[in-house]
Amino acid sequence: MNRIITISRQFGSGGRTIGRMVAERLNIPCYDSEIIDKVAEESGFAKDYIEKHGEYSEYKSWLGKALEHAGNGGNLSNQDRLWIAQRKVVCDLADAGPCVIVGRCADSILKGREGVVNVFIHADKAARAERIVKVYGETDIPVQKRIADKDKRRSTYYKYYTDTKWGVAENYHVALDSGKLGLDKCVDIIVDLF
Amino acid sequence: MNRIITISRQFGSGGRTIGRMVAERLNIPCYDSEIIDKVAEESGFAKDYIEKHGEYSEYKSWLGKALEHAGNGGNLSNQDRLWIAQRKVVCDLADAGPCVIVGRCADSILKGREGVVNVFIHADKAARAERIVKVYGETDIPVQKRIADKDKRRSTYYKYYTDTKWGVAENYHVALDSGKLGLDKCVDIIVDLF
Repeated sequence: MNRIITISRQFGSGGRTIGRMVAERLNIPCYDSEIIDKVAEESGFAKDYIEKHGEYSEYKSWLGKALEHAGNGGNLSNQDRLWIAQRKVVCDLADAGPCVIVGRCADSILKGREGVVNVFIHADKAARAERIVKVYGETDIPVQKRIADKDKRRSTYYKYYTDTKWGVAENYHVALDSGKLGLDKCVDIIVDLF
Repeated sequence: MNRIITISRQFGSGGRTIGRMVAERLNIPCYDSEIIDKVAEESGFAKDYIEKHGEYSEYKSWLGKALEHAGNGGNLSNQDRLWIAQRKVVCDLADAGPCVIVGRCADSILKGREGVVNVFIHADKAARAERIVKVYGETDIPVQKRIADKDKRRSTYYKYYTDTKWGVAENYHVALDSGKLGLDKCVDIIVDLF
Protein backbone atom coordinates (compact mmCIF):
# COMPACT_ATOMS: atom_id res chain seq x y z
CA MET A 1 0.00 0.00 0.00
CA ASN A 2 1.51 3.30 -1.13
CA ARG A 3 0.67 6.40 0.86
CA ILE A 4 -0.50 9.08 -1.55
CA ILE A 5 -1.54 12.68 -0.97
CA THR A 6 -3.77 14.23 -3.62
CA ILE A 7 -4.15 17.99 -3.67
CA SER A 8 -7.08 19.67 -5.37
CA ARG A 9 -6.93 23.44 -5.34
CA GLN A 10 -8.68 26.61 -6.27
CA PHE A 11 -6.74 28.77 -8.71
CA GLY A 12 -4.41 31.07 -6.76
CA SER A 13 -4.82 29.28 -3.41
CA GLY A 14 -1.19 28.14 -3.32
CA GLY A 15 -2.18 24.45 -3.48
CA ARG A 16 0.58 23.63 -5.93
CA THR A 17 3.21 25.26 -3.71
CA ILE A 18 1.81 23.46 -0.66
CA GLY A 19 2.10 20.17 -2.59
CA ARG A 20 5.78 20.85 -3.36
CA MET A 21 6.51 21.82 0.25
CA VAL A 22 4.78 18.73 1.64
CA ALA A 23 6.68 16.45 -0.76
CA GLU A 24 9.98 18.07 0.16
CA ARG A 25 9.32 17.66 3.88
CA LEU A 26 8.36 14.01 3.39
CA ASN A 27 11.11 13.37 0.87
CA ILE A 28 8.74 11.91 -1.72
CA PRO A 29 8.10 13.06 -5.30
CA CYS A 30 5.44 15.66 -6.16
CA TYR A 31 3.74 15.26 -9.55
CA ASP A 32 2.19 18.28 -11.16
CA SER A 33 3.52 19.46 -14.53
CA GLU A 34 5.47 16.17 -14.64
CA ILE A 35 2.13 14.50 -15.32
CA ILE A 36 1.80 16.50 -18.52
CA ASP A 37 5.18 15.18 -19.70
CA LYS A 38 4.22 11.60 -18.92
CA VAL A 39 0.82 11.88 -20.60
CA ALA A 40 2.51 13.40 -23.66
CA GLU A 41 4.98 10.50 -23.80
CA GLU A 42 2.32 7.83 -23.47
CA SER A 43 -0.47 9.33 -25.55
CA GLY A 44 1.19 11.34 -28.27
CA PHE A 45 -0.86 14.43 -27.36
CA ALA A 46 1.13 17.69 -27.53
CA LYS A 47 2.09 19.20 -24.16
CA ASP A 48 0.27 22.43 -25.08
CA TYR A 49 -2.91 20.54 -25.73
CA ILE A 50 -2.67 18.60 -22.47
CA GLU A 51 -2.04 21.77 -20.51
CA LYS A 52 -5.08 23.44 -22.03
CA HIS A 53 -7.47 20.50 -21.92
CA GLY A 54 -6.21 18.17 -19.18
CA GLU A 55 -8.05 19.88 -16.32
CA TYR A 56 -10.30 22.41 -17.99
CA SER A 57 -13.62 22.09 -19.71
CA GLU A 58 -14.00 23.77 -23.07
CA TYR A 59 -17.09 25.76 -22.14
CA LYS A 60 -19.39 23.26 -23.79
CA SER A 61 -22.61 22.30 -22.13
CA TRP A 62 -23.32 18.66 -21.43
CA LEU A 63 -25.80 18.76 -24.29
CA GLY A 64 -23.12 20.25 -26.54
CA LYS A 65 -20.79 17.40 -25.63
CA ALA A 66 -23.51 14.81 -26.15
CA LEU A 67 -24.25 16.22 -29.59
CA GLU A 68 -20.53 16.24 -30.42
CA HIS A 69 -20.37 12.54 -29.51
CA ALA A 70 -23.50 11.80 -31.49
CA GLY A 71 -22.14 13.65 -34.52
CA ASN A 72 -18.98 11.67 -34.04
CA GLY A 73 -20.79 8.34 -34.42
CA GLY A 74 -20.50 7.90 -30.64
CA ASN A 75 -16.70 7.80 -30.82
CA LEU A 76 -14.54 9.26 -28.08
CA SER A 77 -13.62 12.92 -28.35
CA ASN A 78 -9.98 14.03 -28.08
CA GLN A 79 -10.68 15.27 -24.57
CA ASP A 80 -12.08 11.86 -23.61
CA ARG A 81 -8.96 10.14 -24.97
CA LEU A 82 -6.83 12.60 -23.02
CA TRP A 83 -8.84 11.83 -19.86
CA ILE A 84 -8.20 8.10 -20.29
CA ALA A 85 -4.46 8.61 -20.85
CA GLN A 86 -4.21 10.95 -17.87
CA ARG A 87 -6.18 8.57 -15.66
CA LYS A 88 -3.73 5.79 -16.49
CA VAL A 89 -0.71 7.96 -15.67
CA VAL A 90 -2.22 8.91 -12.28
CA CYS A 91 -2.87 5.23 -11.45
CA ASP A 92 0.64 4.23 -12.55
CA LEU A 93 2.21 6.94 -10.37
CA ALA A 94 0.16 5.83 -7.37
CA ASP A 95 1.25 2.22 -7.99
CA ALA A 96 4.91 3.20 -8.25
CA GLY A 97 5.39 4.62 -4.76
CA PRO A 98 4.39 7.22 -2.15
CA CYS A 99 3.90 10.65 -3.71
CA VAL A 100 1.98 13.91 -3.83
CA ILE A 101 -0.25 14.43 -6.89
CA VAL A 102 -1.56 17.92 -7.63
CA GLY A 103 -4.80 18.30 -9.58
CA ARG A 104 -5.85 16.02 -12.48
CA CYS A 105 -8.90 14.74 -10.53
CA ALA A 106 -6.50 12.37 -8.74
CA ASP A 107 -8.70 12.39 -5.62
CA SER A 108 -11.55 10.88 -7.57
CA ILE A 109 -9.40 8.57 -9.71
CA LEU A 110 -7.81 7.05 -6.58
CA LYS A 111 -11.01 7.05 -4.52
CA GLY A 112 -11.32 4.08 -2.19
CA ARG A 113 -7.63 3.11 -2.41
CA GLU A 114 -6.09 2.50 0.97
CA GLY A 115 -3.47 4.98 2.11
CA VAL A 116 -4.76 7.91 0.05
CA VAL A 117 -5.37 11.28 1.75
CA ASN A 118 -7.40 13.74 -0.32
CA VAL A 119 -6.77 17.43 0.40
CA PHE A 120 -8.58 20.50 -0.93
CA ILE A 121 -6.91 23.92 -0.68
CA HIS A 122 -8.96 27.09 -1.03
CA ALA A 123 -8.80 30.75 -0.03
CA ASP A 124 -11.03 33.77 -0.32
CA LYS A 125 -10.96 35.76 -3.55
CA ALA A 126 -8.96 38.68 -2.13
CA ALA A 127 -6.14 36.41 -0.91
CA ARG A 128 -6.13 34.53 -4.22
CA ALA A 129 -6.06 37.72 -6.30
CA GLU A 130 -3.06 38.99 -4.36
CA ARG A 131 -1.24 35.69 -4.82
CA ILE A 132 -2.03 35.40 -8.53
CA VAL A 133 -0.67 38.87 -9.31
CA LYS A 134 2.44 38.13 -7.24
CA VAL A 135 3.13 34.69 -8.73
CA TYR A 136 1.78 34.90 -12.29
CA GLY A 137 1.76 38.67 -12.84
CA GLU A 138 -0.95 40.90 -14.31
CA THR A 139 -2.59 40.26 -17.70
CA ASP A 140 -5.12 42.20 -19.80
CA ILE A 141 -7.89 40.22 -18.09
CA PRO A 142 -8.90 41.44 -14.61
CA VAL A 143 -7.71 39.02 -11.94
CA GLN A 144 -11.21 38.38 -10.54
CA LYS A 145 -12.33 37.27 -13.99
CA ARG A 146 -9.30 34.98 -14.31
CA ILE A 147 -10.23 33.38 -10.97
CA ALA A 148 -13.89 32.93 -11.88
CA ASP A 149 -13.10 31.50 -15.34
CA LYS A 150 -10.48 29.03 -14.18
CA ASP A 151 -12.51 27.73 -11.22
CA LYS A 152 -15.58 27.39 -13.40
CA ARG A 153 -13.71 25.40 -16.06
CA ARG A 154 -12.00 23.17 -13.47
CA SER A 155 -15.25 22.40 -11.68
CA THR A 156 -17.09 21.71 -14.95
CA TYR A 157 -14.31 19.35 -16.08
CA TYR A 158 -14.32 17.61 -12.70
CA LYS A 159 -18.09 17.20 -12.70
CA TYR A 160 -18.10 15.87 -16.27
CA TYR A 161 -15.45 13.21 -15.78
CA THR A 162 -16.01 12.19 -12.14
CA ASP A 163 -19.74 12.89 -11.72
CA THR A 164 -18.87 14.50 -8.38
CA LYS A 165 -19.03 18.10 -7.25
CA TRP A 166 -15.72 19.91 -6.97
CA GLY A 167 -15.04 21.69 -3.67
CA VAL A 168 -17.69 19.92 -1.59
CA ALA A 169 -16.14 19.24 1.83
CA GLU A 170 -17.25 15.63 2.12
CA ASN A 171 -15.23 14.62 -0.96
CA TYR A 172 -11.94 15.41 0.80
CA HIS A 173 -10.41 14.11 4.01
CA VAL A 174 -9.09 17.58 4.78
CA ALA A 175 -10.03 20.98 3.32
CA LEU A 176 -8.00 24.01 4.36
CA ASP A 177 -8.26 27.78 3.85
CA SER A 178 -4.67 28.69 2.95
CA GLY A 179 -5.48 32.42 3.03
CA LYS A 180 -6.56 32.24 6.66
CA LEU A 181 -4.15 29.56 7.93
CA GLY A 182 -1.09 30.41 5.84
CA LEU A 183 0.85 27.98 3.63
CA ASP A 184 3.18 26.73 6.37
CA LYS A 185 0.36 25.74 8.71
CA CYS A 186 -1.38 23.86 5.86
CA VAL A 187 1.87 22.00 5.16
CA ASP A 188 2.25 21.11 8.87
CA ILE A 189 -1.27 19.65 9.04
CA ILE A 190 -0.87 17.58 5.87
CA VAL A 191 2.61 16.30 6.77
CA ASP A 192 1.32 15.32 10.20
CA LEU A 193 -1.53 13.30 8.68
CA PHE A 194 0.86 11.39 6.46
CA MET B 1 -11.35 40.19 20.06
CA ASN B 2 -12.70 36.86 21.34
CA ARG B 3 -11.41 33.72 19.74
CA ILE B 4 -14.36 31.58 18.73
CA ILE B 5 -14.52 28.14 17.15
CA THR B 6 -17.72 27.30 15.31
CA ILE B 7 -18.41 23.66 14.46
CA SER B 8 -20.84 22.69 11.73
CA ARG B 9 -21.35 18.97 11.41
CA GLN B 10 -23.06 16.23 9.46
CA PHE B 11 -25.42 14.13 11.57
CA GLY B 12 -23.47 11.28 13.16
CA SER B 13 -20.02 12.68 12.33
CA GLY B 14 -19.11 13.22 15.99
CA GLY B 15 -18.87 17.01 15.52
CA ARG B 16 -20.65 17.70 18.79
CA THR B 17 -18.27 15.42 20.70
CA ILE B 18 -15.28 17.01 18.97
CA GLY B 19 -16.60 20.43 20.05
CA ARG B 20 -16.81 19.30 23.70
CA MET B 21 -13.31 17.77 23.58
CA VAL B 22 -11.79 20.91 22.02
CA ALA B 23 -13.44 23.14 24.61
CA GLU B 24 -12.22 20.93 27.44
CA ARG B 25 -8.65 20.97 26.13
CA LEU B 26 -8.74 24.77 25.76
CA ASN B 27 -10.61 25.28 29.00
CA ILE B 28 -13.31 27.42 27.39
CA PRO B 29 -17.10 26.83 27.32
CA CYS B 30 -18.80 24.79 24.58
CA TYR B 31 -22.33 25.88 23.63
CA ASP B 32 -24.62 23.34 22.06
CA SER B 33 -27.85 22.43 23.87
CA GLU B 34 -27.11 25.36 26.21
CA ILE B 35 -28.10 27.60 23.30
CA ILE B 36 -31.58 26.07 23.35
CA ASP B 37 -31.93 27.03 27.04
CA LYS B 38 -30.80 30.58 26.42
CA VAL B 39 -33.07 31.03 23.40
CA ALA B 40 -35.99 29.67 25.44
CA GLU B 41 -35.26 32.14 28.24
CA GLU B 42 -34.99 35.12 25.92
CA SER B 43 -37.73 34.35 23.42
CA GLY B 44 -40.39 32.46 25.34
CA PHE B 45 -40.34 29.62 22.76
CA ALA B 46 -40.66 26.17 24.32
CA LYS B 47 -37.44 24.10 24.41
CA ASP B 48 -39.13 21.35 22.41
CA TYR B 49 -40.06 23.76 19.67
CA ILE B 50 -36.53 25.21 19.53
CA GLU B 51 -34.99 21.75 19.35
CA LYS B 52 -37.26 20.78 16.46
CA HIS B 53 -37.13 24.02 14.49
CA GLY B 54 -33.89 25.76 15.48
CA GLU B 55 -31.71 24.00 12.92
CA TYR B 56 -34.09 22.08 10.72
CA SER B 57 -36.31 23.13 7.88
CA GLU B 58 -39.90 21.96 7.94
CA TYR B 59 -39.81 20.42 4.48
CA LYS B 60 -41.41 23.43 2.89
CA SER B 61 -40.22 24.65 -0.46
CA TRP B 62 -39.11 28.25 -0.84
CA LEU B 63 -42.34 28.87 -2.68
CA GLY B 64 -44.29 27.28 0.18
CA LYS B 65 -42.58 29.61 2.63
CA ALA B 66 -43.18 32.64 0.44
CA LEU B 67 -46.87 31.76 0.19
CA GLU B 68 -47.03 31.27 3.95
CA HIS B 69 -45.58 34.74 4.44
CA ALA B 70 -47.95 36.21 1.88
CA GLY B 71 -50.93 34.53 3.54
CA ASN B 72 -49.60 35.90 6.79
CA GLY B 73 -49.83 39.49 5.59
CA GLY B 74 -46.03 39.43 5.15
CA ASN B 75 -45.49 38.98 8.89
CA LEU B 76 -42.65 36.87 10.25
CA SER B 77 -43.31 33.17 10.74
CA ASN B 78 -42.57 31.52 14.09
CA GLN B 79 -39.48 29.97 12.56
CA ASP B 80 -38.28 33.41 11.45
CA ARG B 81 -38.78 34.78 14.95
CA LEU B 82 -36.88 31.80 16.34
CA TRP B 83 -34.05 32.46 13.87
CA ILE B 84 -33.78 36.09 15.03
CA ALA B 85 -33.74 35.08 18.72
CA GLN B 86 -31.15 32.39 18.09
CA ARG B 87 -28.99 34.73 16.03
CA LYS B 88 -28.95 37.19 18.92
CA VAL B 89 -27.95 34.48 21.43
CA VAL B 90 -25.06 33.36 19.17
CA CYS B 91 -23.80 36.97 18.84
CA ASP B 92 -24.10 37.55 22.60
CA LEU B 93 -22.12 34.38 23.36
CA ALA B 94 -19.40 35.41 20.91
CA ASP B 95 -19.25 38.84 22.56
CA ALA B 96 -19.03 37.36 26.04
CA GLY B 97 -15.75 35.44 25.67
CA PRO B 98 -13.80 32.74 23.83
CA CYS B 99 -15.92 29.63 23.25
CA VAL B 100 -16.87 26.74 20.96
CA ILE B 101 -20.32 26.97 19.33
CA VAL B 102 -21.80 23.82 17.76
CA GLY B 103 -24.33 24.19 14.94
CA ARG B 104 -26.97 26.96 14.79
CA CYS B 105 -25.42 28.45 11.61
CA ALA B 106 -22.91 30.18 13.89
CA ASP B 107 -20.26 30.10 11.14
CA SER B 108 -22.43 32.26 8.93
CA ILE B 109 -23.78 34.47 11.74
CA LEU B 110 -20.22 35.32 12.86
CA LYS B 111 -18.78 35.55 9.33
CA GLY B 112 -16.11 38.22 8.96
CA ARG B 113 -15.53 38.63 12.71
CA GLU B 114 -11.88 38.57 13.62
CA GLY B 115 -10.68 35.60 15.63
CA VAL B 116 -13.36 33.17 14.41
CA VAL B 117 -12.33 29.74 13.07
CA ASN B 118 -15.08 27.90 11.20
CA VAL B 119 -14.83 24.10 11.20
CA PHE B 120 -16.91 21.54 9.30
CA ILE B 121 -16.90 17.90 10.45
CA HIS B 122 -18.10 15.15 8.12
CA ALA B 123 -17.66 11.41 7.63
CA ASP B 124 -18.78 8.83 5.12
CA LYS B 125 -22.21 7.27 5.56
CA ALA B 126 -20.93 3.93 6.88
CA ALA B 127 -18.90 5.57 9.66
CA ARG B 128 -21.83 7.84 10.57
CA ALA B 129 -24.34 4.96 10.62
CA GLU B 130 -22.11 3.01 13.00
CA ARG B 131 -21.73 6.01 15.29
CA ILE B 132 -25.45 6.90 15.26
CA VAL B 133 -26.49 3.38 16.29
CA LYS B 134 -23.81 3.36 19.01
CA VAL B 135 -24.61 6.82 20.41
CA TYR B 136 -28.34 7.28 19.77
CA GLY B 137 -29.49 3.66 19.38
CA GLU B 138 -31.71 2.07 16.74
CA THR B 139 -35.19 3.37 15.88
CA ASP B 140 -37.98 2.13 13.58
CA ILE B 141 -36.50 4.27 10.83
CA PRO B 142 -33.48 2.78 9.01
CA VAL B 143 -30.31 4.63 9.95
CA GLN B 144 -29.46 5.62 6.36
CA LYS B 145 -32.85 7.32 6.07
CA ARG B 146 -32.27 9.14 9.37
CA ILE B 147 -28.95 10.43 8.02
CA ALA B 148 -30.41 11.55 4.70
CA ASP B 149 -33.41 13.27 6.34
CA LYS B 150 -31.44 15.13 8.98
CA ASP B 151 -28.73 16.35 6.59
CA LYS B 152 -31.33 17.42 4.07
CA ARG B 153 -33.28 19.41 6.65
CA ARG B 154 -30.12 21.00 8.09
CA SER B 155 -28.84 22.05 4.68
CA THR B 156 -32.24 23.43 3.63
CA TYR B 157 -32.50 25.43 6.85
CA TYR B 158 -28.96 26.72 6.39
CA LYS B 159 -29.55 27.72 2.78
CA TYR B 160 -32.81 29.46 3.64
CA TYR B 161 -31.46 31.62 6.47
CA THR B 162 -27.87 32.23 5.33
CA ASP B 163 -28.23 32.05 1.54
CA THR B 164 -25.06 29.92 1.53
CA LYS B 165 -24.54 26.27 0.68
CA TRP B 166 -23.98 23.97 3.63
CA GLY B 167 -20.91 21.71 3.42
CA VAL B 168 -19.07 23.59 0.66
CA ALA B 169 -15.37 23.58 1.58
CA GLU B 170 -14.73 27.25 0.89
CA ASN B 171 -17.20 28.33 3.60
CA TYR B 172 -15.04 26.82 6.36
CA HIS B 173 -11.44 27.45 7.38
CA VAL B 174 -11.00 23.73 8.06
CA ALA B 175 -13.11 20.75 7.01
CA LEU B 176 -12.20 17.33 8.39
CA ASP B 177 -13.32 13.75 7.76
CA SER B 178 -13.71 12.42 11.32
CA GLY B 179 -14.34 8.87 10.03
CA LYS B 180 -10.96 8.75 8.30
CA LEU B 181 -8.90 10.85 10.73
CA GLY B 182 -10.53 9.83 14.01
CA LEU B 183 -11.98 12.19 16.62
CA ASP B 184 -8.70 12.70 18.52
CA LYS B 185 -6.77 13.81 15.44
CA CYS B 186 -9.56 16.27 14.55
CA VAL B 187 -9.38 17.68 18.09
CA ASP B 188 -5.58 18.03 17.84
CA ILE B 189 -5.79 19.96 14.57
CA ILE B 190 -8.49 22.35 15.84
CA VAL B 191 -6.81 22.96 19.20
CA ASP B 192 -3.54 23.69 17.42
CA LEU B 193 -5.24 26.30 15.19
CA PHE B 194 -6.69 28.08 18.20
